[in-house]
Amino acid sequence: MPEYERMLAANEEWARDFQGGLPVAPARKVAVVACMDSRMPLFPLLGLAVGDAHVIRNAGGVVTEDTIRSLTISQHVLGTREIVLVHHTDCGLQKTDDASFADLVEQATGARPPWPARTFTDADEDVRESIRLLRESPYLVSKDICGTVYDVETGRLHRVDPDAGA
Amino acid sequence: MPEYERMLAANEEWARDFQGGLPVAPARKVAVVACMDSRMPLFPLLGLAVGDAHVIRNAGGVVTEDTIRSLTISQHVLGTREIVLVHHTDCGLQKTDDASFADLVEQATGARPPWPARTFTDADEDVRESIRLLRESPYLVSKDICGTVYDVETGRLHRVDPDAGA
Repeated sequence: MPEYERMLAANEEWARDFQGGLPVAPARKVAVVACMDSRMPLFPLLGLAVGDAHVIRNAGGVVTEDTIRSLTISQHVLGTREIVLVHHTDCGLQKTDDASFADLVEQATGARPPWPARTFTDADEDVRESIRLLRESPYLVSKDICGTVYDVETGRLHRVDPDAGA
Repeated sequence: MPEYERMLAANEEWARDFQGGLPVAPARKVAVVACMDSRMPLFPLLGLAVGDAHVIRNAGGVVTEDTIRSLTISQHVLGTREIVLVHHTDCGLQKTDDASFADLVEQATGARPPWPARTFTDADEDVRESIRLLRESPYLVSKDICGTVYDVETGRLHRVDPDAGA
């Protein structure tokens, strides 16, 4: 059975006792930006209820043009005011580098990506880089940012000092 | 209290009974691409356990260069082979259009975004557009894609026929 069929069957269970009626704007006015890593179920991990916060995720939880697009919509159209970043230990992007990644893709597909993978070595420093990029953006109305790193072995978040090591 | 402090306190609870030891590669070899909407807790909604699937989310759940970057890493570095798309009813991106959004941001910040918001009108058609963009990408090794729309009032997903209306 393809995985999507298992997911559609599981969704039947989810829908059985479902309560709708929530508004589109997040109740707690927060947008979370996190890595796509499979070990981070963000709702229970952060104590979020359905309807509480936007959740933006990509490889690394990095700040790209698409992250800025999503946050700009989140703030201007849907009223969020805080941003919480969640990077994590043991990330796939720490296991390669941009050139090796481009080689790997080119060898498998014949096409070399023109965009960088956005690999990194130090998770805390990568969070600080994200905070710097958000602070530089001219499109956001609120720059109230908390950067964190999640430890996949302990389940614990630690907050990153945005100005450490600067 | 800022929302991030509530989240860090909730995370203490999450970490209390935590079991680590999961590998970085997703167990079910799936990457989910979904909208950032606050009403979609994807793990329970799709029956996912911790460690099962990558979760990529942005405004609309649309396919951008960053979505392709994340999926290319997911497939080439971390071995996923299926892609599940989750768009939804009552999306914030159905409540504006690209020009009005750019006006709104410019009026509030003085800066006009050079990138489109990626607004849409029909959720099923937007899923089909995402499938088309994924099929066109030269960087992915697997194009095994299931597109769905989530109904925020019933909690139910329906599968989108990728070739309907073509």
